[in-house]
Amino acid sequence: MALWGGRFEQGVDEFTQEFGASLEADKVMVQQDIRASRAHAKMLAAQGIISPEDQAAIDAGLADIADQMAAGGFAYDVNDEDIHMAVESKLTAAIGTPGARLHTGRSRNDQVATDLRLYAKDLCRELLEGNLGLRRVLLGVAKDNLDVVMPGYTHLQHAQPVLFSHHMLAYFWMFTRDFTRLSAALRAADANPLGSAALAGTTYPLDRQLTTELLGFDHAIPNSMDAVSDRDYLLDLEYACGVSMMHLSRLCEEIVLWSSTEFGFVTLSDAYSTGSSIMPQKKNPDFAELARGKTGRVYGDLMALLTTMKGLPLAYNKDLQECKEGPTDAAWTLHDCMAIVAGMLKTMTVHANAMLAQAGRGFTAATDVADYLTKRGMPFREAHEVVGKLVLYCEKHHKDLEDLTADEFRAASPLFDDDITHDLDPAGIANARDTYGGTGHDAVVEQLDEASSVLERDERQVAGPSPGESAR
Amino acid sequence: MALWGGRFEQGVDEFTQEFGASLEADKVMVQQDIRASRAHAKMLAAQGIISPEDQAAIDAGLADIADQMAAGGFAYDVNDEDIHMAVESKLTAAIGTPGARLHTGRSRNDQVATDLRLYAKDLCRELLEGNLGLRRVLLGVAKDNLDVVMPGYTHLQHAQPVLFSHHMLAYFWMFTRDFTRLSAALRAADANPLGSAALAGTTYPLDRQLTTELLGFDHAIPNSMDAVSDRDYLLDLEYACGVSMMHLSRLCEEIVLWSSTEFGFVTLSDAYSTGSSIMPQKKNPDFAELARGKTGRVYGDLMALLTTMKGLPLAYNKDLQECKEGPTDAAWTLHDCMAIVAGMLKTMTVHANAMLAQAGRGFTAATDVADYLTKRGMPFREAHEVVGKLVLYCEKHHKDLEDLTADEFRAASPLFDDDITHDLDPAGIANARDTYGGTGHDAVVEQLDEASSVLERDERQVAGPSPGESAR
Amino acid sequence: MALWGGRFEQGVDEFTQEFGASLEADKVMVQQDIRASRAHAKMLAAQGIISPEDQAAIDAGLADIADQMAAGGFAYDVNDEDIHMAVESKLTAAIGTPGARLHTGRSRNDQVATDLRLYAKDLCRELLEGNLGLRRVLLGVAKDNLDVVMPGYTHLQHAQPVLFSHHMLAYFWMFTRDFTRLSAALRAADANPLGSAALAGTTYPLDRQLTTELLGFDHAIPNSMDAVSDRDYLLDLEYACGVSMMHLSRLCEEIVLWSSTEFGFVTLSDAYSTGSSIMPQKKNPDFAELARGKTGRVYGDLMALLTTMKGLPLAYNKDLQECKEGPTDAAWTLHDCMAIVAGMLKTMTVHANAMLAQAGRGFTAATDVADYLTKRGMPFREAHEVVGKLVLYCEKHHKDLEDLTADEFRAASPLFDDDITHDLDPAGIANARDTYGGTGHDAVVEQLDEASSVLERDERQVAGPSPGESAR
Amino acid sequence: MALWGGRFEQGVDEFTQEFGASLEADKVMVQQDIRASRAHAKMLAAQGIISPEDQAAIDAGLADIADQMAAGGFAYDVNDEDIHMAVESKLTAAIGTPGARLHTGRSRNDQVATDLRLYAKDLCRELLEGNLGLRRVLLGVAKDNLDVVMPGYTHLQHAQPVLFSHHMLAYFWMFTRDFTRLSAALRAADANPLGSAALAGTTYPLDRQLTTELLGFDHAIPNSMDAVSDRDYLLDLEYACGVSMMHLSRLCEEIVLWSSTEFGFVTLSDAYSTGSSIMPQKKNPDFAELARGKTGRVYGDLMALLTTMKGLPLAYNKDLQECKEGPTDAAWTLHDCMAIVAGMLKTMTVHANAMLAQAGRGFTAATDVADYLTKRGMPFREAHEVVGKLVLYCEKHHKDLEDLTADEFRAASPLFDDDITHDLDPAGIANARDTYGGTGHDAVVEQLDEASSVLERDERQVAGPSPGESAR
Repeated sequence: MALWGGRFEQGVDEFTQEFGASLEADKVMVQQDIRASRAHAKMLAAQGIISPEDQAAIDAGLADIADQMAAGGFAYDVNDEDIHMAVESKLTAAIGTPGARLHTGRSRNDQVATDLRLYAKDLCRELLEGNLGLRRVLLGVAKDNLDVVMPGYTHLQHAQPVLFSHHMLAYFWMFTRDFTRLSAALRAADANPLGSAALAGTTYPLDRQLTTELLGFDHAIPNSMDAVSDRDYLLDLEYACGVSMMHLSRLCEEIVLWSSTEFGFVTLSDAYSTGSSIMPQKKNPDFAELARGKTGRVYGDLMALLTTMKGLPLAYNKDLQECKEGPTDAAWTLHDCMAIVAGMLKTMTVHANAMLAQAGRGFTAATDVADYLTKRGMPFREAHEVVGKLVLYCEKHHKDLEDLTADEFRAASPLFDDDITHDLDPAGIANARDTYGGTGHDAVVEQLDEASSVLERDERQVAGPSPGESAR
Repeated sequence: MALWGGRFEQGVDEFTQEFGASLEADKVMVQQDIRASRAHAKMLAAQGIISPEDQAAIDAGLADIADQMAAGGFAYDVNDEDIHMAVESKLTAAIGTPGARLHTGRSRNDQVATDLRLYAKDLCRELLEGNLGLRRVLLGVAKDNLDVVMPGYTHLQHAQPVLFSHHMLAYFWMFTRDFTRLSAALRAADANPLGSAALAGTTYPLDRQLTTELLGFDHAIPNSMDAVSDRDYLLDLEYACGVSMMHLSRLCEEIVLWSSTEFGFVTLSDAYSTGSSIMPQKKNPDFAELARGKTGRVYGDLMALLTTMKGLPLAYNKDLQECKEGPTDAAWTLHDCMAIVAGMLKTMTVHANAMLAQAGRGFTAATDVADYLTKRGMPFREAHEVVGKLVLYCEKHHKDLEDLTADEFRAASPLFDDDITHDLDPAGIANARDTYGGTGHDAVVEQLDEASSVLERDERQVAGPSPGESAR
Repeated sequence: MALWGGRFEQGVDEFTQEFGASLEADKVMVQQDIRASRAHAKMLAAQGIISPEDQAAIDAGLADIADQMAAGGFAYDVNDEDIHMAVESKLTAAIGTPGARLHTGRSRNDQVATDLRLYAKDLCRELLEGNLGLRRVLLGVAKDNLDVVMPGYTHLQHAQPVLFSHHMLAYFWMFTRDFTRLSAALRAADANPLGSAALAGTTYPLDRQLTTELLGFDHAIPNSMDAVSDRDYLLDLEYACGVSMMHLSRLCEEIVLWSSTEFGFVTLSDAYSTGSSIMPQKKNPDFAELARGKTGRVYGDLMALLTTMKGLPLAYNKDLQECKEGPTDAAWTLHDCMAIVAGMLKTMTVHANAMLAQAGRGFTAATDVADYLTKRGMPFREAHEVVGKLVLYCEKHHKDLEDLTADEFRAASPLFDDDITHDLDPAGIANARDTYGGTGHDAVVEQLDEASSVLERDERQVAGPSPGESAR
Repeated sequence: MALWGGRFEQGVDEFTQEFGASLEADKVMVQQDIRASRAHAKMLAAQGIISPEDQAAIDAGLADIADQMAAGGFAYDVNDEDIHMAVESKLTAAIGTPGARLHTGRSRNDQVATDLRLYAKDLCRELLEGNLGLRRVLLGVAKDNLDVVMPGYTHLQHAQPVLFSHHMLAYFWMFTRDFTRLSAALRAADANPLGSAALAGTTYPLDRQLTTELLGFDHAIPNSMDAVSDRDYLLDLEYACGVSMMHLSRLCEEIVLWSSTEFGFVTLSDAYSTGSSIMPQKKNPDFAELARGKTGRVYGDLMALLTTMKGLPLAYNKDLQECKEGPTDAAWTLHDCMAIVAGMLKTMTVHANAMLAQAGRGFTAATDVADYLTKRGMPFREAHEVVGKLVLYCEKHHKDLEDLTADEFRAASPLFDDDITHDLDPAGIANARDTYGGTGHDAVVEQLDEASSVLERDERQVAGPSPGESAR
């Protein structure tokens, strides 16, 4: 279709055409484009700008194209610069003149902004669903392994025993925050640019409120120049994906560690492992590594769009064409990684005994020994010093704190009674931390309840009315 | 102070000490550290963990240190690894044993997390204030120049005439979105980690709800491991700064363009201009360029923290020490750039005549000529073609559309009547776009009202109760 | 093909399989994979590890697959995890048992490292060619417009007149530096990992020198663990692309500026312009904007890989699979952008008169007036002050420096003689700067000679022997 | 000093002044600024542009300022916008009128470019020294632990036994490549912009070759516009730092892993460990974590400058002021991290027995068992399948491959002879990999020789003549 032919005497060659085209990147949002065009035509007719007959023809024609697309698409013409022109030229080929009236009071600038926002909203909804799925699995693993004791780490050194359930719940809360970020991205996208035309609005008596309602947007954007040049919502989406990938990278790093021979805390299902082409014994946590590695690409997508947007004058500039692939890539990458990690967690075998055995190593009772002294009146800083020396003593004699006699303890401080040798077992130490948010059994049971409530709240949010179809 | 000396036989040398220290980066949050310690001590006493006398001594001692700091600080000891130890050692030097009891039921891990969150909240509040200041200026410039007509650009080509006011308001809405992002960062920071100790909670009967209230946090964090390792709120802050810098970079790019000899749309005040060491005539928009250039450093800060967080296992790792400088740098950079740009806008001279003269150049009436035909029944795609050819005709005859006679118009299409030659003036064209969000005078007046309401709403939010002091 | 089936009792499902697969990303390097396998087989036979008959069968089988691929490829099996397995399974299907011997003394780890390096070298060569092409065009434009005078800018303010040719040559030298960076990336890739097996070398008596020669590598990598985990050369490639895109973004920014109504310095060919769907008059520098915008994606590719590599322990980790798409995307993006920009420059019309008219505006002679005083003995700092005041005088009286009388000059300083009013024309000022590297005609002619010599030197480098085929 | 006062009627206020100032960032390069000014003055005199007396006064005055600076600096005037003005105003205050002649034929644009290049060269030299220091340590550790056997990992799973020495050497080669990158950055910086003035060259008969020689630059830059706007060499420096930090992050990740209770491969010296404020037993690899975490800031520095440079038109723009802090931060971060890691490696205790014990776990002999079959004629793919099943058999019977009888082997394949049960020990397996680049003892001895030669070559390069002083 000769989109802007009148003023031009010479066409662009094929390489240039292909370089400038965004058809490949656009294809994913063909349904959104058709939805928006149908709403636009309905409004044009309601305002008397086009006739009811034209509108009916346009609507039927577009519905037909949507069906063809859903059924597998059809061949695109290489001369169609983008999906918007491709759909319009199909339409005009099918229904004639009424098709040529569709673009009245509209520019590609507000059209592409509308499509992108509808698509971004659909992506956000998919991600919110995926986020809920992952959190359900984390909560389930936490519930199923409530009293499994493992070493808690700081600096990857044994610090204090914790419940594996508590450890899993830490991730639950991270992804809960990501739910908030994704919801913010959805809200950012939820505003209607249609009716802004090229940059300045139009001279047609458009009813922007009507298209806002028809398309399920929260409100119409109050400034036409902002409407056609704003891509913040895509940055918000990429950023939310980036942070969530970072959380996944942390979890996957731990899965890789836990699967190692040295840790031996979990065994991944064969369904989430791969082997080696040369080493027959290998069973690799490939999918955890891949999800960790894909963090890079999502960070890259974010940095790409931030760079592209820098320093652009108002309003639309062609640079903005580069806004399409990155967010799509970021969203589907996160989507798939959440699904993969959820599957990995659901099917992995937790080795409670191996975790417990390690939980007692590395003097993880030391803080409690110091607290013992503090509770008998010694200022904490002194108690810390006393126990530090006890640990050094143990290391030199190849003992653990549990191996010390009461007399050995007393040699370090007279405040130690015989009862110090009791209750140095990891489970007891973990469970003693039972204030709100702590790792003790009772505190974790309370936390599980809170997590369940929060999850239900978020599930209700997602189950709310959603006019859009699947984005993929 | 020998913070963790008991277990160690050998100290670190000076270079290593300095490499590991975070004192420089920490200093900015000394007031937050003292606030948190005072709340912690108050809670310890309320729970009977320390005596009222000890608490009173601690509270007075810390208040004294806070005053000294506010009055200009005092010399730090090079052996103080961080601000937390520096304050505690000052305290113990001043009040003796009670000082050594302050750290009961607390670890540096939850202490630093608390300080950082208090500091982040204070930074967010400063930025919200700055954001309001900038938006007030944008709104003022928009009101003061309501009927100034300028060329609206897409692709930096003249597109259609717009009101300068409309153009300024586009930025108003961008920064309104940034207000939302900064508020989200503030909310993300607004949760209390104190009481999480090293990673697992403590065996002391802490009352986390009490410190939550004393410190003005929204709620206590429900998972101790998450509490000590979460830095998402700093990413949220950096991201909000990054997007806002991007918006500033766009505005500054335009100020640079408008200040050029070729555009000549504005003259910056001498107070926001600099000269050249060699070229006596130069008057450079240095501050606009600098704000644009600083976008890079804020993007860099965001990328830095995202990278640092990638793949870290739970819970605290020393890598997190790198979380301090970046967000501080990002926040103050944005803060200062908003102030500079606000000052620049407020003092610049707008050359309405130069803008208007350009608004009529570049065939900016072409869309309206096409709409003329469409309103007489020609499908838009055809009208576009007809006007495209008229433009080509003009170019070849070195004319503008306004220079054409009605006959010349009619040669292109018989639908043209004599009235086509009226109302091709830029102001008329701009004002005809008066649907919601458009650039027409009436629509912009409506938009100014809406912007004022939104600004007042946001001002009320910021004016709400705020327990923190200035962050700087 | 069951690549690592023996140890596994359960397969992965389709979604997981697809998530883990790299086939799509790998496809581009199928010819490199086949080249490497043929060399490996030849070496195995030379060392007596496989029989000459087996090697002959393998070689013929692989040659046949290469031909099929070159002719359009064939269907891949979804169970083929990657291109390496796809080729090997085709081979074994075609020639039977000898195919199963190909992987002797080799692992996918060294195989994929070898393929990637061969591919990276081919990409570098394509980019070196593209770089030469662009520089030829820049040199040509510089030669064709030798005496066109334009305003030289700093801070986008008129500074001093310069030759357009000189301006173009500045870009020539930027891309000359990129040639150096791309050459360094090629050298970094030019080392043979084959024979390193999984990570430790093998027990077979491989001749790594022979495969090094057969594949045209500079040398064999001296450490097998480094050989399978090093991806530095891909970072080098992405970095070189990133910097070169930055240079393109600067040039494209200028083309966008120069094409604006306000500047009017150049007109782009219709073949490198696009229109608007709504505004019939528009002729947009889309391709310049798009090349500028694509800078973001290449920066993103670099940041992605840097992130992915961070913190990976030795040796191979699956995260490295993410190394493939980014460098490919970065390289072809730069490649295509260089071609587009070269085409745009070659076909654009330079408006010498418009440039010259602007060159005299904005007091661009001020430096020379100050130099006039300095050469008569006034210290430069004083002369600068005197001329600054003259400029202010001109502004207030709406004059330019050329409009002043000798008496007006003398009012500012008695050192001015009547001759000050001569030679304030832009061309004279530009041409007076004729020391090495300056913008004067003679200096630019000298510079053109130097640029030609450097270009010829680089052309000789690229024309050197190159064993690889086209990478695309 | 009123640097550009003549044209301005109003000054900037203090906040604006501070915002625009670069004095803080500049201070590090004061010696470079003085060196450049002395060379410039010497050349001006040699060309007869200033008198020998003026030059002598300038030279003595600047030497005096340099001495004062080296001795601790002196107070800067807040009105000095940058280091260049600060030095010049000190000079003029000290020597009067000759000082005001120093800036003849020079602009701040070429002055700052010259200073930055001298400074960048000095930074590169410091980094090359630091790089050599780290590589010496790596080579030393590799030599001192030649026959220590450890598990070689892929996917953090045990793969095949390797020599610890071989593992260390992998890092030696990474940093060898970084030496190459740093050398390239130094070469990129090694070109003289002085004499380019503001952007166009000057009308004074400058001898750029003379300043090139006096300042020890390789050559004069052939284009004045490129000379004042090129910052590629700083990107090259930051990129080299970024890749080297990535290598350090990998090494530090391993040190953290190896220091864990689970691995127990090394113990860090107390001098490179820290404790906990709450947990008395803790001994944390803080410095390894910190070096790993600082990777983020260096990536951020790179991204910052890439962003700042994007889309800037020629020639100098104030955005370039943002080029100073990032490269300085990146360089000193790498510098200090290399020193820290070198110290950590040199003082850590290697637990050879713990490494060896793990080297035999995880079926690391499986590849050799498969090779055994291949050498007896079974195609490799089949052998892989047979051994995979043997591993599964072992896992189910809680055995290791070494525990199997020859009959159990034969049940899997009749090709196994009794000798299969010999030589499955890790050291034997490692040492059998003795082709070039492999992990066998002989191959590693050869590799150590090669590494020593390469190191000596690089030491000779750095020991070459270097006119600059220390950059810090």
